Amino acid sequence: MDEAEAAPPGTTVPAQRGRLVLVPNALDHGAVAQELGAVLPRAALQWAARLRHWLVEDARSARAFLKRVDAVVPLEQPLQSLAITELPRPPKGRRPGPPCEDSARDAATKALLAPALDGNDIGLLSEAGLPAVADPGAAVVGAAHALGLAVLPLPGPSALVLALAASGLDGQSFAFVGYLPQDAAARCERIRALEATSRRLKQTQIFIETPYRNNALLGSLLECAAAATRLSVSQALTLPEGSSRTASIGQWQRLHAAQPAQAPLLSDRLPAVFLLQA
Amino acid sequence: MDEAEAAPPGTTVPAQRGRLVLVPNALDHGAVAQELGAVLPRAALQWAARLRHWLVEDARSARAFLKRVDAVVPLEQPLQSLAITELPRPPKGRRPGPPCEDSARDAATKALLAPALDGNDIGLLSEAGLPAVADPGAAVVGAAHALGLAVLPLPGPSALVLALAASGLDGQSFAFVGYLPQDAAARCERIRALEATSRRLKQTQIFIETPYRNNALLGSLLECAAAATRLSVSQALTLPEGSSRTASIGQWQRLHAAQPAQAPLLSDRLPAVFLLQA
Repeated sequence: MDEAEAAPPGTTVPAQRGRLVLVPNALDHGAVAQELGAVLPRAALQWAARLRHWLVEDARSARAFLKRVDAVVPLEQPLQSLAITELPRPPKGRRPGPPCEDSARDAATKALLAPALDGNDIGLLSEAGLPAVADPGAAVVGAAHALGLAVLPLPGPSALVLALAASGLDGQSFAFVGYLPQDAAARCERIRALEATSRRLKQTQIFIETPYRNNALLGSLLECAAAATRLSVSQALTLPEGSSRTASIGQWQRLHAAQPAQAPLLSDRLPAVFLLQA
Repeated sequence: MDEAEAAPPGTTVPAQRGRLVLVPNALDHGAVAQELGAVLPRAALQWAARLRHWLVEDARSARAFLKRVDAVVPLEQPLQSLAITELPRPPKGRRPGPPCEDSARDAATKALLAPALDGNDIGLLSEAGLPAVADPGAAVVGAAHALGLAVLPLPGPSALVLALAASGLDGQSFAFVGYLPQDAAARCERIRALEATSRRLKQTQIFIETPYRNNALLGSLLECAAAATRLSVSQALTLPEGSSRTASIGQWQRLHAAQPAQAPLLSDRLPAVFLLQA
């Protein structure tokens, strides 16, 4: 990183700045008693065991994560002594949007990084996967760059790219577009727009849904997308019940028709990633 | 996965099909003597140590990878006894395009999966990171789905999403667009088109370059992009010399101007990921 500049002669050597360390989480949302060493690399676990300052989405689940870390790599400090701060909740609405330019919020975000100005490394943790990807952490990372802090992303899993790899759809050109509209007509229109974009740019389109609406979204896709469009759905990747299925919309329609109504094709409990290529 | 169907009574139980297992690689291109356990989770290493059949981009570097696996989790079979098959080279050109519909190539790709039809799991390995993301492996994954084989993506690092996480740019809407044109005028036009797309869709644009052209691409960005556009460049993520820097084009221009010509801002040896948000 480029923080290690020698001080000019005759000046006081400035205190070493702390780094913002992006710590990956497992993809299981704490739902299973998965051993973290199976899914996170040792570098991530060792860092997590060492950090005393944390910025997290939810303090309770962050503590649960750190207990799981402790079972693999003992924490250097007792859990109760760690400084765990929750990120401000994003503004209401499904998508908080890009890091806000608003100067008050900007100042508040920078204030979260104060421990790093005093030389402490700070861990940024998401509820699942990599922080700042498909979650509200990006503003803090942006603030770290603005303050000249080094940002250190630790290797770990991301459900979006695992689903892309597992899809067999074009992995050399893809876009993640977040959530689709909930209104049926607007959603149908959006699905057709995604197909048009996919065709025009030869680009795989990736989107997500709240688990209990998985089958509703699948229903819209089967209704609105073209029969030849390829659809991939991955659920619960990295978990024992994980699955990935890729087929044309026409094939999905036949699978759906063959399925008893009380046994829908997708689980409404497990997180899903949807991908289409038209 | 959905392969475990009971055979109807009176029929011969079909041999259990093998799976296509997507094995993550480190991001170091074998350049450093990094211990794989630091960057890959144990699940990936244990799978890699167990698989006898492999589809890889390059047999030599795959063997080097498996030696590194062996140093952490001993291989179950001697390296020489493994069936390591290289994927067919993609057609000439920088971007091989989506899985080809051509039936001859389709048949050839399916033939690569023959061991799975006989009940053997097959590992798919990329030169770096996740297979089938920003590399030619997607056709094999598509063929696996077409054959009804289960596809199992193992957790591991992806340089693209690590760079996205580290950028602080919008991680809730992003696109990976591969390589930009090499011709200066075409490249400038493409950069402006990416800015327009980024503005219109509020979408982070991610692209890559061959390392020895990193500074040439940076030069084009400083020349063609708007001063307020934010640019992030990550190099060698997960390696000791890794770095991530995010700043406005205007700030990058000042950094560039302050730099002696013989010490360019980017390394021309290390892989880089570029991200812009206009």
